[in-house]
Amino acid sequence: MSTLAESYLVGLIGDGVTPSLTPPMHEAEADAHGIRYLYRPIDLAAIGRPGSDVGTLLSSARELGFNAFNITHPCKQLVLMHLDSVSVDAERLGAVNTVLIRDGRFHGENTDFSGFAHALRTGLPGVALDRVVQLGAGGAGAAVAYALLASGVRHLTLIDLDAERTRERAAALAALFPDRAVVAASPDDIGHELAAADGLVHATPVGMHQHPGMPVDARLLSPRHWVADVVYRPVETELVRAAVALGCRVLDGGHMAVGQAVDAFRLITGVEPDAGRMRHHFLDLLAKGL
Amino acid sequence: MSTLAESYLVGLIGDGVTPSLTPPMHEAEADAHGIRYLYRPIDLAAIGRPGSDVGTLLSSARELGFNAFNITHPCKQLVLMHLDSVSVDAERLGAVNTVLIRDGRFHGENTDFSGFAHALRTGLPGVALDRVVQLGAGGAGAAVAYALLASGVRHLTLIDLDAERTRERAAALAALFPDRAVVAASPDDIGHELAAADGLVHATPVGMHQHPGMPVDARLLSPRHWVADVVYRPVETELVRAAVALGCRVLDGGHMAVGQAVDAFRLITGVEPDAGRMRHHFLDLLAKGL
Repeated sequence: MSTLAESYLVGLIGDGVTPSLTPPMHEAEADAHGIRYLYRPIDLAAIGRPGSDVGTLLSSARELGFNAFNITHPCKQLVLMHLDSVSVDAERLGAVNTVLIRDGRFHGENTDFSGFAHALRTGLPGVALDRVVQLGAGGAGAAVAYALLASGVRHLTLIDLDAERTRERAAALAALFPDRAVVAASPDDIGHELAAADGLVHATPVGMHQHPGMPVDARLLSPRHWVADVVYRPVETELVRAAVALGCRVLDGGHMAVGQAVDAFRLITGVEPDAGRMRHHFLDLLAKGL
Repeated sequence: MSTLAESYLVGLIGDGVTPSLTPPMHEAEADAHGIRYLYRPIDLAAIGRPGSDVGTLLSSARELGFNAFNITHPCKQLVLMHLDSVSVDAERLGAVNTVLIRDGRFHGENTDFSGFAHALRTGLPGVALDRVVQLGAGGAGAAVAYALLASGVRHLTLIDLDAERTRERAAALAALFPDRAVVAASPDDIGHELAAADGLVHATPVGMHQHPGMPVDARLLSPRHWVADVVYRPVETELVRAAVALGCRVLDGGHMAVGQAVDAFRLITGVEPDAGRMRHHFLDLLAKGL
């Protein structure tokens, strides 16, 4: 347990982060442990700074008494050059979403990957991981794909509208996991790929409030598929609803959102958070329209 | 009352402020009101910055989500040029110890003065204010002298080893309070001045742990004098002890230290603090050797 004398000042650096639910999630969990904790969004759009200023912001914040940060778009790669050390997984993934200040030095971690891996393990225990199809190969997609491979997926098919990005991502992941198959496929192949797959992971913006819709034809899903979504606003996406209706085992996007926060909270405080309580609070916040 | 959604991030900018008791005083009072509050010392010595960087620090801190600051040596005057507005009293006094961020703009206040005035009113109610002798015309002395005149003192004698500073301070105060007498006197005149005075205010470092001793010969005090000290480490200075032993009415330095915090807390949060509880907590912290 942390001592009562300690307190935590944490920032979330990224573009458009003002409405993020991560700050209230951390604060409520800290309250439950009796830890003084303040978590401020540092919204690049609001303060008129480009993502390339992330190093300047980190240095200023260190002087002003911050203890740690979450880092999001567009700074997850940009932040790397400002760190004194980085975890092996964040280094391999090439992206950092959590920065700790330890003895005045910046240390980077990635809890997007670990949070999704944890969510998969606890939310879909025992599912087959031989073949998985993943839609979306952007930033969130990279962390999710890394988590899938780290979790034991033997054959991962990446599908994205941006064919070049998809090929590059697949090649990079294949190099990191040489005993697995990581292949890029076209959106036209999705039916064929899903027919052979155990599970589907969705990591594109489709299904968000601003981008409603189904990322895949529901007729390509069958009850034997498990389905994981990373979209959490709303937490019940059209994909989640369709998969539940089919009888699939389903992991909604809230699990990854909460999972990254659970792992970040543990890294920042050294205190084990109550993951169930954090998910409950997260769903409460969503229900309140926050 | 502030709403539960609000939280406060406050900084104390100054040289050697790491052990200041102001942060824990604010935090404990906020806890009692259920307000999320984090107060960080920003120690210029620790981060290797000169006082002239106060404007840079304020701007960085505003970007990072700070709501307010206390400002202390050596920045109380330096900060003035970085403010968008300032209270009439702080402007007249030429010193700011509290900066609020309101709609993104910096507003300066001085609660050293108001805190001492409040302490005088509540800690020594009804004392005669016709003639007062004040020892010490430095930074704290300026705020205290201003408070004395604002509280109704008719004749104020300033005494300091630095004769030029004393004359300048007296002239500046006389200009601000044209219907009062504010005069500079030499340390040699102290017996003569005290013989005619109602009260003695002490605002030099003598009596602090690092500077033990009596700032004035105890034989010059008589039971009809009231005595106010601004030294609070220890809260029971040799002067306070001697004055109590004589039967004088006494205001110890803790009252000003707590008074400035009470007024700053109210300005920052809009919530009325419990001054008695804050003093109690302050004395507790001192007793713990913090």
